[in-house]
Formats: sequence, structure tokens, C-alpha cells
Amino acid sequence: MSAPLHVVILAAGRGRRMRSARPKVLHRLGGEPLLAHVLRAAAPLGGRIHVVHGHGGEAVRAAFDGAEVAWVHQREQLGTGHAVAQALPAVPDEARVLVLCGDVPLIGTATLRALLEAAADGVGVLTVELADPTGYGRIVRDAAGRVRAIVEERDADEAVRALREVNTGILTAPASPLRRWLGALSRDNAQGEYYLTDIVGLAVAEGVPVTALPCADPWEVAGVNDRAQLAALERVLQRRRAAALMAAGASLADPARVEIRGEVTVGRDVEIDVGVVLEGRVVLGEGARVGPFCVLRDTEVGPGAVVEAFCHLEGARIGAEARVGPYARLRPGAELAEAVHVGNFVEVKNARLGRASKANHLAYLGDAEIGARVNIGAGTITCNYDGARKHRTVIEDEAFIGSDTQLVAPVRVGRGATVGAGSTITRDVPPGGLTLSRVPQQTVPHWQRPRKDRDPGERG
Amino acid sequence: MSAPLHVVILAAGRGRRMRSARPKVLHRLGGEPLLAHVLRAAAPLGGRIHVVHGHGGEAVRAAFDGAEVAWVHQREQLGTGHAVAQALPAVPDEARVLVLCGDVPLIGTATLRALLEAAADGVGVLTVELADPTGYGRIVRDAAGRVRAIVEERDADEAVRALREVNTGILTAPASPLRRWLGALSRDNAQGEYYLTDIVGLAVAEGVPVTALPCADPWEVAGVNDRAQLAALERVLQRRRAAALMAAGASLADPARVEIRGEVTVGRDVEIDVGVVLEGRVVLGEGARVGPFCVLRDTEVGPGAVVEAFCHLEGARIGAEARVGPYARLRPGAELAEAVHVGNFVEVKNARLGRASKANHLAYLGDAEIGARVNIGAGTITCNYDGARKHRTVIEDEAFIGSDTQLVAPVRVGRGATVGAGSTITRDVPPGGLTLSRVPQQTVPHWQRPRKDRDPGERG
Amino acid sequence: MSAPLHVVILAAGRGRRMRSARPKVLHRLGGEPLLAHVLRAAAPLGGRIHVVHGHGGEAVRAAFDGAEVAWVHQREQLGTGHAVAQALPAVPDEARVLVLCGDVPLIGTATLRALLEAAADGVGVLTVELADPTGYGRIVRDAAGRVRAIVEERDADEAVRALREVNTGILTAPASPLRRWLGALSRDNAQGEYYLTDIVGLAVAEGVPVTALPCADPWEVAGVNDRAQLAALERVLQRRRAAALMAAGASLADPARVEIRGEVTVGRDVEIDVGVVLEGRVVLGEGARVGPFCVLRDTEVGPGAVVEAFCHLEGARIGAEARVGPYARLRPGAELAEAVHVGNFVEVKNARLGRASKANHLAYLGDAEIGARVNIGAGTITCNYDGARKHRTVIEDEAFIGSDTQLVAPVRVGRGATVGAGSTITRDVPPGGLTLSRVPQQTVPHWQRPRKDRDPGERG
Repeated sequence: MSAPLHVVILAAGRGRRMRSARPKVLHRLGGEPLLAHVLRAAAPLGGRIHVVHGHGGEAVRAAFDGAEVAWVHQREQLGTGHAVAQALPAVPDEARVLVLCGDVPLIGTATLRALLEAAADGVGVLTVELADPTGYGRIVRDAAGRVRAIVEERDADEAVRALREVNTGILTAPASPLRRWLGALSRDNAQGEYYLTDIVGLAVAEGVPVTALPCADPWEVAGVNDRAQLAALERVLQRRRAAALMAAGASLADPARVEIRGEVTVGRDVEIDVGVVLEGRVVLGEGARVGPFCVLRDTEVGPGAVVEAFCHLEGARIGAEARVGPYARLRPGAELAEAVHVGNFVEVKNARLGRASKANHLAYLGDAEIGARVNIGAGTITCNYDGARKHRTVIEDEAFIGSDTQLVAPVRVGRGATVGAGSTITRDVPPGGLTLSRVPQQTVPHWQRPRKDRDPGERG
Repeated sequence: MSAPLHVVILAAGRGRRMRSARPKVLHRLGGEPLLAHVLRAAAPLGGRIHVVHGHGGEAVRAAFDGAEVAWVHQREQLGTGHAVAQALPAVPDEARVLVLCGDVPLIGTATLRALLEAAADGVGVLTVELADPTGYGRIVRDAAGRVRAIVEERDADEAVRALREVNTGILTAPASPLRRWLGALSRDNAQGEYYLTDIVGLAVAEGVPVTALPCADPWEVAGVNDRAQLAALERVLQRRRAAALMAAGASLADPARVEIRGEVTVGRDVEIDVGVVLEGRVVLGEGARVGPFCVLRDTEVGPGAVVEAFCHLEGARIGAEARVGPYARLRPGAELAEAVHVGNFVEVKNARLGRASKANHLAYLGDAEIGARVNIGAGTITCNYDGARKHRTVIEDEAFIGSDTQLVAPVRVGRGATVGAGSTITRDVPPGGLTLSRVPQQTVPHWQRPRKDRDPGERG
Repeated sequence: MSAPLHVVILAAGRGRRMRSARPKVLHRLGGEPLLAHVLRAAAPLGGRIHVVHGHGGEAVRAAFDGAEVAWVHQREQLGTGHAVAQALPAVPDEARVLVLCGDVPLIGTATLRALLEAAADGVGVLTVELADPTGYGRIVRDAAGRVRAIVEERDADEAVRALREVNTGILTAPASPLRRWLGALSRDNAQGEYYLTDIVGLAVAEGVPVTALPCADPWEVAGVNDRAQLAALERVLQRRRAAALMAAGASLADPARVEIRGEVTVGRDVEIDVGVVLEGRVVLGEGARVGPFCVLRDTEVGPGAVVEAFCHLEGARIGAEARVGPYARLRPGAELAEAVHVGNFVEVKNARLGRASKANHLAYLGDAEIGARVNIGAGTITCNYDGARKHRTVIEDEAFIGSDTQLVAPVRVGRGATVGAGSTITRDVPPGGLTLSRVPQQTVPHWQRPRKDRDPGERG
């Protein structure tokens, strides 16, 4: 294969059965558009990539902004042969062309390499044997097993329909004859379309060798035509990713109940409980544990750290041996140092907590710089927004913030300071001592609570 | 079939193997009692419906209060023949009777129609072929394939037990001979019961045509005898409902992990993540997204709105492009206009939020009328209950409620007003300006925090 | 079987394929180490138990501190024969030895009893027939079906490899000849190890009867060699436990989505929704309901009580007809009396709530004694920690705590007292009357909120 490789990805299908306003190749599998999977499979082959789009082409291009791809617009949907023909003007005669389908996302690089190798001297078709071949183009071989043609279901007679080896839509051919054959295609068939597969008959007629390479794994060549198929492929992909995590040393409570929608790196002895969703770039350090029903997105969890149930972590970094949750919400810019505790119903955004600091209950910490060994009482709120701008709160080491304190930023609490419960802190707090804003408690002895018409204690 | 149809549903079974205090037909499948499924399958047939109940009959009647059903009490459990006989007094001679089982919930209307049609000239029995027929009444046919009898397992010899076509319990017969045959049944059998199925032999003896119609789908005729069977049927039902949602244009991250326990309507390009429970009447507008691990009950989500993970929504209406959660709890009467944001650890009950208003953190908004572009600070609480009655809070457009404010209802905050953090608002707030209740911050410089015997920052 | 039984459990395997720092037998299945399952299967047999550990032996011993087990250290990993030999010095000559595998956790006591009985007169090998026997030692029988030898995969020829009956590693033999045979083992084989299975050939040579008892259920004898196998066994175990709960009268919305990691006791008509994790000792009273996505650990839920979605309960006791959640967090020492309501975003730790008391929103109740019919307002916090010690809060019957109150412990609120919203309570509150700490509300009319450069209402 010294010929330069040009990969043509067919991504123009409308996907009517998806019932969607979105182009089919932008539907997501494992957190990424279908087309991204095909691009990733093709990339290691090292060729130039052409993507033929049609319906919703602008959305497709926008989704892959920056990708090294030659975009080709297919104005009318006149069949796969027509689609490939749109890309050929940009392909040199001496090239080898590999045609992929934008809606066949699990295709593997190794399979493509095998096809290119097997068909180096002519045309190659990737095929698959199906228990139920209904709807697919059948591979017609002669008595000697040589490929004669690919016949579409609608154009097939009884005998051909009985064949179980079918076309996958993935094909390779030398550019020069391919160009000629595409020019010779006719629309005289059941769908009135130019079938790419008809080039097989033309190649055979010219005596060009045609290799049909069966793909052992039907999932690799499974296409997405409706949302049920998309969901089925999602399960296959997730099962594989889960297996990879287990092989890397992670224990999964149930491999069928972890979602991996990005690039997940795990250390040894990581434990992931049921119902965990991992998105984007997630790193779980050695011995880290993630409890049931958690969502982690673009988050790093340090070695030995524990994420309890019901956490929602996004853009966060969690230090070694830290303990987070249950019900902790970490938002972008949350950085927890070693041994930090962030507990239930606590939200942290764009804030750092130093070593061994704790915010265990019902708090909002936004735009804050918190030192080491600080104790944040329940109900503490950093008032970071004045209606126009965000301001920072600084809390120095070993401060103790009493429960239900509001820290009106910008404000600084000095080292070792204690803030009394229920205080509204509007000015800087000096180090040490006790700072508070408090009203004496009074009692109106004869005051009567409004009479209840119903059960006491009821509350909305 | 010009004869009037009378449907007799057998719902008197004790369901001993359910180990339940509840009548079997009240156990829930897909959010509804088993009997409701059978009633819904029967309704389009247009006949009069009789339900024979026994054990726990009052509970059954109460659960279907208002349903157009003739209730029949079977005092003693003397077999299916006896049960049908209890209903017959209210059935006219010229009627056609269709007997259904209250614990066979997935039966389809089309199948029932096919049975009625096939057996229009006599008796019809719905059958099914099982790989393992153990425990079921076998369909005995003669050499010509004509039905001769139905023989219960306990009364069957070796040859009959080997038969794999079995009775489903669903049967139709003309009322007049049925009445006669039921009168002729005997209890001289292994269980000492009047078997409805014995009428088949009587019909055969009289030369009345007996049609056995095999049902292609075993799940349609599967009965519920224990909780494992109930759970198995639940999975079948949920799989079907998930498939219907996908066909309607919704993407499901995993069709096996969405629960649909009511009537769910989806627009195109709706996305539903794993672990979503939908109950009652749920409407998801075009492009709406529901994140992982959410519960929605009787809730409407507008087009393009996003429900993040861990939301619990009940009786709520969410406007277009609104953003809710994670961890938002909307309770009945929560109405969010377009582009509203309700964030984490926020509870909204019987309250409206106007366009683009935001309550992003740790708040309780109950019995409130909130205008447009209002900002509700973290920790804000509407004190709507005085121990006896609920009172309303009104917040006008563009007000800004500082963090940790208590709004003691009834109270009104004027348009554009700003309320300072930590205020207790007991009287109406005028429009504009700054309203607050605040104590000057003081410091006791030499105060000493109690000495820690252990790690600083530790907290319960 | 009058010979004393000595059970030797082989637990020295490194488990390289687990990719773990932890000894293999300490990996968890159903919430317990693998070895615990084997010990529990062996216990009813009544023999003396020897556990042979190697790699990470100290961790193994520590994990089973207090167990009645004779620990044996195998310094070098020289094969199963060598491992058993390490235990034999402590086994008397007249004993019967039963060899189990520490990484075969689902073995059942009944199967072991059957093996001991079948092999009472000699050597017994538990076998299993596998569709794919690759990798396992094959059972070689003679024409009469008598066992001749066990041949390891690596040492097997074509014919032997074709055999599908394989060794499970579970074996029994009389101690005295076993000792002799082990002494005669050679390492002259593919792995250079002393194979325990070679004793079969030696027994045959001596004319000692060898019984191969096939185990009907392959899962019972499935070993754990990597995390994928561990996960597969976890699913099998969970399926069985779920079936047992259903048989006991609990309805499971999906038996495949409940985790049972301890001893769970259910009353009749318990309902468990999808995504529920039960750990430790959990008791669910008759008619109790647990909503979707809950974690319960060492918790008791009273009859008729309801646990709504997203609850996290640990070491808690919930009274009859109580209602908890959604999003309630109960921590150790939380005791709710009958008909108590604990609502969303409420944390309770080491605190009792008396009959019909309510804490429905956003609160922290720690180290508290709360009476009956008390109403805890939203945002209430018990300030139980002064930086050094925990203090108790006492709230007497029928008190009403206004929203956003801080109760600075130690403090007592008298019977029927009302505390005004937003108060900081530092001293005891007398019974009845109204107690509060409040600042008059003021307005600065001409104050201007900072100008927004962007959308009003935006907030971090």
C-alpha cells in the first residue's frame, strides 16, 4: 500500500427514522457524535479524510470545527455512489480510497487495516454474516467463492435474499478506476439511486480482483438508523469501556451500570459503585472510591479519596484522602487539598479549600480562598455577588466560621479567627478573637402562637 | 358478532404466593394495579364488564371507584367455573361472554379481538405454546387437530403432560350454553374445584365448535402468581414503553433504566439519561433534557429546558429553556417561566417564578409569587407558616434578595428592591433602595476558642 | 463420616490478574470479602478450619480478626499441593480433610455435604461440566466411568483437552494417605508446581476409591481471577438475594437494580424501588416503602414508613408511618419516632425526634433531643460544636422553631415555646411565649445596587 490513502466518510444521510432535527451523525454515542467515533477509527490510518455531508451540514461542520477534514457538500441525496463521487475531485488518481459510513461508529482501526491489506490489489468490501440479513445488500459469490456482485435487498430475487453474507457499506478501491466506475453507475434500480456497491460488478467485469473480507464482530459494522439501534450500540460500547476499566484494576459493582462518556483513567484498586456517570476527562487515583449514584465530569479524584453517594462533581480537583459527600456539589474551579471534607448539601464553586479544612453541612462557598484546618459551620454562605460583579472571600488558616454566617465579599477572615453563629460579616475579621454580629435574645412571655386548625407541626 | 359482549374478569384469586395483605389484582405493574391493565385491554371491545372479586373485594372496588364495572362477589373460592357462574345472572342469554384473568395484565386488545372473531360460531380458547408447560392445563387435540378438551396438570397422564400447548385461562363462549355447561360442572378432580376449562369437553360433546387460538407472544398471556413473576412482567412492560418513547423521537441512554409509570409524552430530540423515573402524566417538550437519576411525577418540562441530575419534580411546570437542578425539588404548584434557573438544594412549592428569575442555591420558596428577573440569594427562606396558616410572599420584578434572608409572610418586596444579606423581613419592602436588618459587626479580640482535644475543624 | 473434619481453605493466591494491592480473598462480593463467603459455607459442616494464606497474609488475618480459624502461612507459592501440605501438620491422621478455595465464594454447604457423603470411603473431587473447559484441569475417566486422573490444561494432550468435565479445586481425602500422597508429589510439570490434583492418580494407583461428583450449578464453583469475574459473580449473588427478598414478600421494581450487601429483613408488602443499596443490617417493616435511588446502611424502617427518593440513611431508626426524604440524610444515632417527617436537605445525627415532629426543609439537627409535635423551621441549625466539644440541644414538646434559627448548644427550648425566624438562640428559651433575637428592618431609599454589565439575576 504505497498509494496515498484518502478516506471518504459518508455523513449525508438524513436519518429520517431518528425523528430528529439533528443530522444523524451528530447523535451521541458514549458522549460523542457518531462521526467522532468514525474519525477516531480512521485517524491512525494516516490518510486524508473527506467527509461528505448533506442535510444539516453546517451543524456537522460546526461540531467538528478545527478537525483536519475536507468537507464536501452533497446537495442532493442521490445514493452512496453519488456521495462518493462528490469527494473524488479532491482525490488524486494514484490514491487508494477507503469509504466509511458516518453512522457505523464502532468500526475498528484494525479491521480497516486488514481490509486495506487484503484488497491492496483491487477492490475490497467489508462484509458480515447475519442471522437475519433482511434489508441489507447481499454478497453474491460464484461457485469458487469469488465475489461477483452486491445486490440490494429491493433488487434481489429469492435465491439472493437467502444469502446471509451482507455488505457493510465499507469499501476500498483505487481512485482512478473508482472514478471511472462511479461515472458509469446507473439509477435504474428500485430506489432510483446511484449505488456505490454497483462498482463491484463493474470491477468484476474488468477483471479487477474484488476481495470480500468478513468482519467477525457484527457490532463493529452495525449502523444507526433509529434510536433503538443507537441505544443498543451505546450498551455495547459501555460494556467494552467497563471491561477496560476492570482490566485496568477498577472494581465495578455492576459493569452494566457505569457510564463512561469520555476518557477515564483509573489507578489500581479504584472502586466504582452502581449508577456512576463519568463524563469528559476523569482521573481516579489509586484506591479512590466513588459511591453509588454520582456524576463526575472533568474531575480528578486523588488517591484514597472517597466520593460518597449522590455527588455531582464538575471541573473539580479532589486531593488525596479527601472525603466528599454525600450530596456534595463541586463546580468548576473547586479545588480540595488533601484530607478536606466537604459534606452534604454543600456547593463549592471556584474555591480552594486547604489541607484538612471542613465544610460538612448546607453551605455555599463560591469564589473563595480557604486556608488549612478551617472549619466552615453549617449554613455558611459566601455572598459573592452584588448584583453586578463577583467578589472573593478569603479565610485564613484555622479560622472557625460559626453556623449560618454570611460572608459578604470582598472580605477576609484572619488566621485563627472565630466568627459567631448567625453573623453577617461585611468587613474584614482580624486574626484570632471572636467576631460576631448578634442581637440579644428576648422573650415576649405572653405572646400566643396563632391557633392551629390542624395538626401541629405541619409545614409547607 | 352481533351478540352483545359481556366481559367477565376473574379477580378473586387470593394470590397466596404473593405473600401479601393486598388482593393480587391490586399489585402494581407500570404504576397501576394489574386489574387496570386488563380493564384497559377490554375497554375498546365495547362490552359490559363484570369483575368477580373475592378476597379483599372492598379494597378492589375502592381502587376502581367510579369505573364502569359490574362488581360480583365470589364468596367461596370454588374454582374458575364457579367464579364465572357468579357473574352470569347479570348476563343475558343472547350475549357472548369473554372471560379474562385479572392477573394476566399484558393481554392485548388485538389478541382478544382475534379470539372473538375466530370463535364467533362457538367456544374459543386462547392458548400458548410453552417450552416448559409444567403446571398449566394442556390443550388436547384429536388427530385432525380439533380441540377435544383442556386437562389440568394435576389430572393429566404422562402423554397429556408432554403436550406443550396450554390454556391461558382466556376463553369465550355464548352465554346461553355457557350457563348450561357451568351448571353441569363437577368438582370431582384433583383440586376439588369447578374448572371453567371443563366446559370445553362439554361443548365438544354437544358438537359446538371449539377453536383454540395460539397466542404468538407468551408475555401477553403470562400470569402473576408471585413477586418474581410480577417483576419479570414489569421489565417486559418497561421495555415496550421505552421502545415507544424511542420511536417517538426520544434518546434513552439506556432503555433498560428508565421507568415509565404513567402517560409520558415526548417531543422530538428529547434526551433521557440513565435512572429516570417518570410517573403520572409527564410531558417533555422538544429538545428537553433530563439528566441522570431524576424523578418526575405529573410534571411538564418545556422545550429546550434542562433538568440536571438528582431532581425530584412533582406537579410542576417548567418553562422553555429553563434550567433546573441538580438537586432541585419542585413540589405541586411550582411554576417556572421561561429561562428560569432553579439550582441545587432548592425547594419550590406552590410558587411561581417569572421569566429569567434565579434561585440557584439552598433555598425554600413556598407559597410565593416571584416576578421576572428576580435574584434569590443562597439560603433564602419564605417563612410561610405561622404554626396555623400558610401566608404568601410576593417579590416583584428585578428584586434582589440577599443571601440568608427570611421573608416572614405575608410580605411583599417591591420592584427592583435590594434586600441585604442575613435580613429578617417582617414588613413590606418598598420598591428600589436597600432594605436590611443588620447588627454592626463587633470583635472581642482576646476571646479564646475552647481548646481542641482533637483535630481542628472536626464537626458533627 | 465419623472422622473429625478439617477444612483447609486455600487463600494464598496472589491474584495477579486482579491488578490489586490487596490479597485476592479480601476483594468484596456482596459487601463481604470472598473468604467470608467460603467460611460461611464451611461453618455448618462443623469441622476445624485452616486457612492457608500467602501474599498479604497479615491483611487477611486482620480482616478476620476473631474468627475461629487456624492460620497457616505458605511462604513460597509452590502450588496447591504444597499449600495443603502447609496445613497438614495441624491435622490428625484420623481426620477427613476437605480442601476449599478461598476464591470460589458461591460454593454451597449442601454441595459440600454431598461431596463428603459421596466420598466417605476415599477421595472425592467436586467437578463441573463446562461448555468451554479451556484452562481447567480435566477429569479423566476410564471406560467404566471411574476417575483415573486429573490432568492440567498445560499438561494435557488433544484428547484430554476435549473433555468437558473439569476439576473445581474442591476435594476431600482422608488425612493419613493425603499426607503420604502430598509427600510424593513432583514438580515435574508445565508450571513447575506441586499439584494437589496429582493425588488423584496416586489414590487410583493404590486402589483407593475416587469419586468425582459433578456440581449442577457452575456458579457455585466459579472462581474469581479478575475483576470481570468478580463482577459477574456479584450479579449472580445479587440476583439470588433479590429473589429471596421477593419470596419473603417484598416487591422489587427491578430485581437487577437492588444491591443487598448485608443481612436484610423484610416484612410483607415492602416495596423497594429501582436503584436501592442496602448495606449491613437493614430491617424494613411490613408495608414500608423505599423510593428510588436510596442508600440504607444498618438502618431500621418501621411498618408503613415511607423513605422517599435520594435518601442516605446510616445507623438510623425510623418509626412506623414516618416519612423521610426526599434527600434526607440520617446519620448514626438518628431516631425518629412514629409519624415523624424529615424532609429535603435535612441532616440528622445523634438526635431523637419525638412523635409527629417535623423538620421538612434544609436543616441540621445534631446531638439533639427533640420532643413530640415539634416544628423545626427551614434552615434551622443546631450549633453543636464549639471548636472543641459537642454539646446537646433539647427542644421540648410542641415547640415551634422559626426558620433559619441557630440553636447554640448547650441550650434548651421549653415546651410550647415559639422561636422567631432568624434568631440566634444562645440561652435557654422558657416554655411558651415568643423568643427571638431580631433587629428592626430599615430601608435606605436612595441606595443604588451596583450596575449590572450583564443579565440581571445571574449568580454564581
